[in-house]
Amino acid sequence: MTVAVWGVGTSRFGRQPDRSAVELAWDAVQEALADASVEEVDAAYVGTVFEAPGVAQRALSGIGLTGIPIVTVENACASGTTAFHEAREAVRTGRYERVLALGVEHLTSRFDGPITPERTDPEQASGLLLPALYALSASRYMAEHGATPADFARVSVKNSRHGALNPRAGRRRAVTEEEVLCSRMIAEPLTLYQCAGLSDAAAAAVLGPARRGEHDVPVRASVLRSGTAWDQRSAHVWGYDIVHATSARAYEEAGIGPADVDVLEVHDAFTVGEIVTVEALGLAEFGGASRRVASGALSLGGDQPVNPSGGLLSRGHPLGATGLAQIAELTWQLRGEAGERQVPGARTALVETMGGGASGVDGNGCVVAVLGG
Amino acid sequence: MTVAVWGVGTSRFGRQPDRSAVELAWDAVQEALADASVEEVDAAYVGTVFEAPGVAQRALSGIGLTGIPIVTVENACASGTTAFHEAREAVRTGRYERVLALGVEHLTSRFDGPITPERTDPEQASGLLLPALYALSASRYMAEHGATPADFARVSVKNSRHGALNPRAGRRRAVTEEEVLCSRMIAEPLTLYQCAGLSDAAAAAVLGPARRGEHDVPVRASVLRSGTAWDQRSAHVWGYDIVHATSARAYEEAGIGPADVDVLEVHDAFTVGEIVTVEALGLAEFGGASRRVASGALSLGGDQPVNPSGGLLSRGHPLGATGLAQIAELTWQLRGEAGERQVPGARTALVETMGGGASGVDGNGCVVAVLGG
Repeated sequence: MTVAVWGVGTSRFGRQPDRSAVELAWDAVQEALADASVEEVDAAYVGTVFEAPGVAQRALSGIGLTGIPIVTVENACASGTTAFHEAREAVRTGRYERVLALGVEHLTSRFDGPITPERTDPEQASGLLLPALYALSASRYMAEHGATPADFARVSVKNSRHGALNPRAGRRRAVTEEEVLCSRMIAEPLTLYQCAGLSDAAAAAVLGPARRGEHDVPVRASVLRSGTAWDQRSAHVWGYDIVHATSARAYEEAGIGPADVDVLEVHDAFTVGEIVTVEALGLAEFGGASRRVASGALSLGGDQPVNPSGGLLSRGHPLGATGLAQIAELTWQLRGEAGERQVPGARTALVETMGGGASGVDGNGCVVAVLGG
Repeated sequence: MTVAVWGVGTSRFGRQPDRSAVELAWDAVQEALADASVEEVDAAYVGTVFEAPGVAQRALSGIGLTGIPIVTVENACASGTTAFHEAREAVRTGRYERVLALGVEHLTSRFDGPITPERTDPEQASGLLLPALYALSASRYMAEHGATPADFARVSVKNSRHGALNPRAGRRRAVTEEEVLCSRMIAEPLTLYQCAGLSDAAAAAVLGPARRGEHDVPVRASVLRSGTAWDQRSAHVWGYDIVHATSARAYEEAGIGPADVDVLEVHDAFTVGEIVTVEALGLAEFGGASRRVASGALSLGGDQPVNPSGGLLSRGHPLGATGLAQIAELTWQLRGEAGERQVPGARTALVETMGGGASGVDGNGCVVAVLGG
């Protein structure tokens, strides 16, 4: 059975001290239900990393969605797309007809700086917070491929231009390469403007069997996997292998190759993440992503726009909500409803999120999904 | 397709400051894999409430289970059975052949007393911690049915006798009614010995298509649902409605009635919970559970032993691990491997867990599953 996205919705993204996770979830779910033209669902998968137990039930019961199976899922930065993946599989296998995938995170009430390391994680406890882990990847990438800090900064320039066109983004100012390079150093070579900010938001999608009509967006593939042992002597930096392996299966399931993708939302929590992901997805040769960024091929107006929403760098990264915000953006793109960010004639879209990665595993989890006709 | 439990395993239960969640998970998973006679699985669902993000991946990668889909699930006290439910559904619908369900919680490193209320939960913030919520249920139950504190205490007497026979239980001493009633008051009428203790543990099951042979335990039904709005004027106390509704669907799916169940593991986090659950499951008439407890019908040697393992009251309640420890006990019972706790000739077993319940919903989630031939 082909599954389709019937409707999507998101809250506003950004620091929202006056609104609770439950209220943000209401915004996203109510918009998604209305967009899907349904008032009820048969089950819900809810992605969150740091929200309290029961937040899903509180949010959904508050708008009358009770008595259904509700499963809260966690998969680090891929929690939202994990909820999407499980919802899609639940429809595909005939368990339910209409399934809600919701992601929610009020991250600014949990953290006031970088996400605190877990004392049970030996690598994070020794300093390998995510900014440091990405910075090591960036340094290794520069050493392997002769890239420069400016190559990473251009990802922020591109995505901030896209984000400036996105009314739902948390950061809406296009920044210059100089501004990016001169912003505060977080973990060399990554500066502040190359790191996605803490943010509060929710995003949702309603999935069901594909129906006739232009409104539904078919899900052609969705693949979830965890990482394997990461060989630090490899020329591949952290994250490449899990994204490559996951996307290879997604392309196979969808019956397409990288060249067939018209528009993508990928995990740019840090600029180097987008560079590595673009290569792992096969959109650029190994070591060649920064040249494709510099050429404009991955910008709105280029061959294969990456992160037309502005990505996590513009939207912010409210962990559980991120994946479903990516799904929402691509749904709007494929329906031709993306306004100033519209990729003309977009027919095939790809979403990728990858989360975690310490403890010697090349990513806790990665989801790659292909949407479109 | 009929799904079966191929193998089960658990760590030791109890306060274990010298062992990490990851190490406890290793104990449970390695025993379950060996019991199932498999070395690998195709996917894993991991239930936990308070463990750090990534604990599932750290645990499973440490014993070579990498590159598979891993989904961490949370559903309050029903997190372990939610992992079981999703694993069963994944096999039943043909997504995977061999699926691991794991539950893990190192609770004593997170809390040093009752589980801390979430400030985002208005009811808990105003004092309705779980002991208080169960105490209100117990008071209401006494008012409705003329029950006495001793009626609740007898559940602890029964379950402590069972737990004394269980080498994996955290508390292994049979207590008298007087000891239970005279132990420290926690929330009237519930005394200390009527409350499941904080505990550290992991438990696991490997599920796959039912094969021939005595070792596999078929899963005849598994139902998951969230609560509905709880009418506080109802004669039903909190928890009754969600357990009743969930079990009605499970009985229907299994094609059996309450009288057909030979042995049960149910959610006795507090004694009143077992009383209410026994009625909601249809094992006793409304208001009649305490008489069935007093008669010995629900004890080992009686008609329908409830919690032969000693239940949460003896085992302790490491949230994520609880549901899979219940599954493990019933698997041993149905295979005739329960030693001194064996229910002779047990053929049909039922497991029930219910979690959460504040915010006006009658339970965040409940799972009822029926195992057996």
